[in-house]
Amino acid sequence: MTTIALDAMGGDHGPQVVVPAALDSLQRNPLLRLVLVGDETVLRGYLKDAPARFGERLKVRHASQVVEMHDQPSKALRTKKDSSMRVAIDLVKQGEADACVSAGNTGALMAIAKFVLKTIPGIDRPAIIAAVPSMTGHTHVLDLGANVDCTAEHLYQFAVMGYELVRAVEEREHPTVGLLNIGEEEIKGNEQVKRAAELLNGAHVNFVGFVEGNDIFKGSVDIVVTDGFVGNVALKSSEGLAKMISHFIKREFSSSWLTKLAGLVALPVLNAFKRRIDPRQYNGASLLGLRGIVIKSHGNADRFSFANAVAIAVKEVEKAVPDRIGERVTDVFAARNLA
Amino acid sequence: MTTIALDAMGGDHGPQVVVPAALDSLQRNPLLRLVLVGDETVLRGYLKDAPARFGERLKVRHASQVVEMHDQPSKALRTKKDSSMRVAIDLVKQGEADACVSAGNTGALMAIAKFVLKTIPGIDRPAIIAAVPSMTGHTHVLDLGANVDCTAEHLYQFAVMGYELVRAVEEREHPTVGLLNIGEEEIKGNEQVKRAAELLNGAHVNFVGFVEGNDIFKGSVDIVVTDGFVGNVALKSSEGLAKMISHFIKREFSSSWLTKLAGLVALPVLNAFKRRIDPRQYNGASLLGLRGIVIKSHGNADRFSFANAVAIAVKEVEKAVPDRIGERVTDVFAARNLA
Repeated sequence: MTTIALDAMGGDHGPQVVVPAALDSLQRNPLLRLVLVGDETVLRGYLKDAPARFGERLKVRHASQVVEMHDQPSKALRTKKDSSMRVAIDLVKQGEADACVSAGNTGALMAIAKFVLKTIPGIDRPAIIAAVPSMTGHTHVLDLGANVDCTAEHLYQFAVMGYELVRAVEEREHPTVGLLNIGEEEIKGNEQVKRAAELLNGAHVNFVGFVEGNDIFKGSVDIVVTDGFVGNVALKSSEGLAKMISHFIKREFSSSWLTKLAGLVALPVLNAFKRRIDPRQYNGASLLGLRGIVIKSHGNADRFSFANAVAIAVKEVEKAVPDRIGERVTDVFAARNLA
Repeated sequence: MTTIALDAMGGDHGPQVVVPAALDSLQRNPLLRLVLVGDETVLRGYLKDAPARFGERLKVRHASQVVEMHDQPSKALRTKKDSSMRVAIDLVKQGEADACVSAGNTGALMAIAKFVLKTIPGIDRPAIIAAVPSMTGHTHVLDLGANVDCTAEHLYQFAVMGYELVRAVEEREHPTVGLLNIGEEEIKGNEQVKRAAELLNGAHVNFVGFVEGNDIFKGSVDIVVTDGFVGNVALKSSEGLAKMISHFIKREFSSSWLTKLAGLVALPVLNAFKRRIDPRQYNGASLLGLRGIVIKSHGNADRFSFANAVAIAVKEVEKAVPDRIGERVTDVFAARNLA
């Protein structure tokens, strides 16, 4: 059995999304237990029509506070010790849950998780990693915004963590790692990136060299490593472009009765295409480098998306991702010290 | 009359694309003169079927060397003084041309242009700016790769230049300027970005604050300012995503005879959509901050795209963009010294 704690109050929709997503997850996975963390009265209200058959597999844990989207991370850490987010992370620390999932404030989640769970020895900073669709399957990208100023050593550590995560959850022996740069030639790029490439050339990860922005969606490598500022901008720009394309396609198909008719004919095909790159099936970013599993769901995730984040948490528990990263880091550091 | 020098040997296709694009441009604009710079024998070959009616409006200027795509910028600057790229820029310096356009090696173009033309007083580094389509029209983004490590002062200067360019070529009185960041709150972002925001708050550009990656395509502001590393990654990621989407749409429509039929019906609508965001009509990035107009065309631009870059050069000549930037910089610096 795997137990996951859910921050039931987090995100734009709180229990309205988290509770149905939790029921869907329990329905789908008979070996799953969930702990809904949040205001007990509110949660009981949402659960009153929940099927009784889940019994002990679905528990509620009261938490009196909520971390708001606009709360400063440091303030949330200091003053919201009984928030649904904090209690969910505490459950992981205490061993009562194997992982937790929250759709709340990313900065607060990272700050609290780092404070409560601590980082894996050898890892200076946790990073945020998520998969995005690519022409050949999907690409894992990190860091997506946890760290805005990264040294070469940080980028190196991100690569080691991303490599081990993908090895574990994708069951691939030697996934490829690329370092995001603005040119493939060695002469380009900033100092941190050049130095990180030197470090990675000597590391026991399958480093294939520099990649450029377009390689993320081309699927040239399995893991793309970059600092949190660049990673965040790359992903958000792409999100913006996808929305623009969808907006213009809709507009074009609704411009006249003739194009509307064409749209009706094309709809099943366009829907099949949308399912293929549906961002909801990619919902769930991992806070990597912690001594515990914490998954961040998108703030405005719907029921389907949130359940996907829960599934990612389950997978990382099954594959014992933090332990594997810990072992890999120990090996890599031993090799570096010998070299 | 406006005279533009074209680096006829640059880019992936050289004269094969530049010559037909030049003829199209002359055909379209009766007040345009062009100087094709490159190997005279080769160019005469391409021109043998050219209409005689262009007469003096189309000249060839011999240059014996070519800057290759893989040439290091510093080496191209030192050893290729008779390259088509260098001679085209020299023509601008000597006043024989009002602007030049090249599809060649970006790094070399920037290095040579900076060396030959020099920067505008008050501008430390030139930047690369281009327009991308957005939901509301288009957005100008800079820097797109000329500068990988930028200080707050550099970002500030980019904002001033971008503001003046858009005012000039779009004939807008007060275009809006946003600074690319990873969160809208003041607490996020790296040090340079936070400091640049402080500088911009006191500047006479219409600075509206931080924007995020998705705002580029949403069209939230007219000008998005960022460092060259981030700008380059944002644009290339988006290019990659657009290619992936186009690839999957094509694949979905060709998966069976039924979807192929649907594709035939949808084709005119999809083509109308493609025309709307056709990257070719956005081809032509400006090297901003130089005492002269230099336009960089995409390396693999086709005839239509290259002609678009020529049109951008013409527009910047008409609007005397470098002079306007020079005046704006003088004003801004005077205001800063008074403050």
